[in-house]
Amino acid sequence: MLRIVLAPDSFKGSLGAPSVCVALARGIVRALPDAQIRARPMADGGEGTLDTVLAAVGAAGKRLARDVAGADGAPVRAAYGVIDSGEGPTAVIEVAQVVGITDARAMSAPVADRSTRGVGELVVALLDAGVRRFMIGLGGSSTNDGGSGLLAALGVALLDASGRELPAMPRALARLARVDAARLDPRIAQSELRIMSDVDNPLTGALGATAVFGPQKGVAPGDVDALDATLGRYAALAERALGRDVARHPGAGAAGGLGFALQLLGGKFASGAEVVAGLIGLDAALADADWAITGEGRSDRQTLLAKAPFVVARHAAAHGIPVTLISGAVDAAALADLAAHFAGCFALPNGPATLADCIRDAAFLLEARAEQAARVFAAGRGLPHRTVK
Amino acid sequence: MLRIVLAPDSFKGSLGAPSVCVALARGIVRALPDAQIRARPMADGGEGTLDTVLAAVGAAGKRLARDVAGADGAPVRAAYGVIDSGEGPTAVIEVAQVVGITDARAMSAPVADRSTRGVGELVVALLDAGVRRFMIGLGGSSTNDGGSGLLAALGVALLDASGRELPAMPRALARLARVDAARLDPRIAQSELRIMSDVDNPLTGALGATAVFGPQKGVAPGDVDALDATLGRYAALAERALGRDVARHPGAGAAGGLGFALQLLGGKFASGAEVVAGLIGLDAALADADWAITGEGRSDRQTLLAKAPFVVARHAAAHGIPVTLISGAVDAAALADLAAHFAGCFALPNGPATLADCIRDAAFLLEARAEQAARVFAAGRGLPHRTVK
Repeated sequence: MLRIVLAPDSFKGSLGAPSVCVALARGIVRALPDAQIRARPMADGGEGTLDTVLAAVGAAGKRLARDVAGADGAPVRAAYGVIDSGEGPTAVIEVAQVVGITDARAMSAPVADRSTRGVGELVVALLDAGVRRFMIGLGGSSTNDGGSGLLAALGVALLDASGRELPAMPRALARLARVDAARLDPRIAQSELRIMSDVDNPLTGALGATAVFGPQKGVAPGDVDALDATLGRYAALAERALGRDVARHPGAGAAGGLGFALQLLGGKFASGAEVVAGLIGLDAALADADWAITGEGRSDRQTLLAKAPFVVARHAAAHGIPVTLISGAVDAAALADLAAHFAGCFALPNGPATLADCIRDAAFLLEARAEQAARVFAAGRGLPHRTVK
Repeated sequence: MLRIVLAPDSFKGSLGAPSVCVALARGIVRALPDAQIRARPMADGGEGTLDTVLAAVGAAGKRLARDVAGADGAPVRAAYGVIDSGEGPTAVIEVAQVVGITDARAMSAPVADRSTRGVGELVVALLDAGVRRFMIGLGGSSTNDGGSGLLAALGVALLDASGRELPAMPRALARLARVDAARLDPRIAQSELRIMSDVDNPLTGALGATAVFGPQKGVAPGDVDALDATLGRYAALAERALGRDVARHPGAGAAGGLGFALQLLGGKFASGAEVVAGLIGLDAALADADWAITGEGRSDRQTLLAKAPFVVARHAAAHGIPVTLISGAVDAAALADLAAHFAGCFALPNGPATLADCIRDAAFLLEARAEQAARVFAAGRGLPHRTVK
């Protein structure tokens, strides 16, 4: 009996990772009706991470929600998770649930007025509830406030030249003169902050948060330099107040500088996919498996920078298990590099097709591709050809 | 050492079958560098058959050419082949080489003035050279003359009411009153005519040559009924003269009725792909192989009607060899039926792509798809993952 691990990421904009597993499984059983399927939906710390982790931990996890400030200050109901791992509760926060770039209401406010204060409010509420372990996924934020909102919610004062407290948003930070960390919530120092992100940009400069990610959040090209300089001054003052020097660290530019603020608070970056792999028990599933399948919406050279399929490939390789990649699209220019890590890389289309076709038909195409790959695998293994309709 | 048979049809409008084999082989050796590749380009009696057969028989075959009448009467240089199989010469004729629908000059003449006389001239020349075995591929003709041109060139007289001989073309056949086969070349009765075609339409009627294929050859919609009636009268007279009743036989409507005329002369339909499979020694290549790959420009339900990939699958199944399909496109609606016959069906695209993209990049995409399929096959077989750039 073949043991097959299905560990895809979500197909962003199309199917969540659990649905991808269902489609892959449907295809595989048509070619290999006796296979034992082990569905281990993956995530990389971005969109879908919360659901994936909660699905994996089952009864040990709880899906909760709380009203906190959205990026524009108005309340949003933010979903989060709490896992009881036996060593005390661990919170799973998706920043996109609070200040997500898909929140149309918050996006209608200027980026200069958007803040991560709600993320800090959620952290405070969890600290109040006794949580001291945090996993924070940084993908998909609409903010570019250097994480000042988070710091402010945790008690860090942002002051103008006359000592008046400023709101934590880019527009006000232009008048920042001093940062006072005297009232920083002391429970933060007792906490473990694991930051899940696949962005390694620094906070400022040509590769910084504002220059690289600002435009897609609504920063006008002419405003990039001024906002970048504002974040630079803010960072220098905040670093002095907190006693850490992290603005140039990789990932400080993640989530509009939330990666900076979290590192300033002692947070450590971790590969989101690696953290998820640990939580879902990927290694145990792979240990005696015969084959694994992973995938994502689009695979390219970025995939090899610790995206979920690459992490699955690395873990599978450690167990000597071949892993096949089935993605919505596979960048032709990256195929040779990808091929070195996967036992076959396949894209969804059955022939000429538009992106909209592929997104609409993703479940059907995934099922078809998995079946066809399984038929080749079965042929290689010398198994008889099965026809199951 | 793995033995892998490559037996694709041509990718019409893109790559000939030998080029498809080269692309597949390049991809496979990157995943399975020690594999023994056996390239057996296939054909189905249509475009590319002549080149495929001549490539397969090597020194036993000769590629020749002769000036005969094109569809419009002006000379064309028609390529053909002669194979010496030990039992005497066999001629390989592609009708499209004489009256091809891609011949722009001939196509500028009205379809009512186009004739298959040149095909008959070529047969006569070959009879003169001592050939008595003919393989005639019917794909891609521009004519709709019921094969009257072929009959005329072989000595059958087409006469009007006053006994005057008529030119063998649809316009003149409207005045046909009698067919006289008294001077039919007697060497035809001593000959074997194998007709390679995948069209099984009758000569006339709603599923006949004129109604189904006439429009793409230039028959105006308003002329279909009259031309169909003309061919019907011609067929009745010719059948009486030749003493055979074949107008309703499957394939009589192939190549504008050339299938009728050839059957009237005693010709037998054969699956073009089966004939080619025999000529290229497909069974010998498959006998001790581990895996086979086939493919074509587009696979759909028609593929299962004795197209080249299906014939390859049938032969491979007889030897217990799994065969994987790699086509430009695979019709989603036919995938379940195709999957019953192939160890995996794959299309070319790496992601969203237009037909023009796929045609332009066909060689690259074939190479990529073959490599990726080979990696899955290798994984199924438990072979180590190889990285060869």
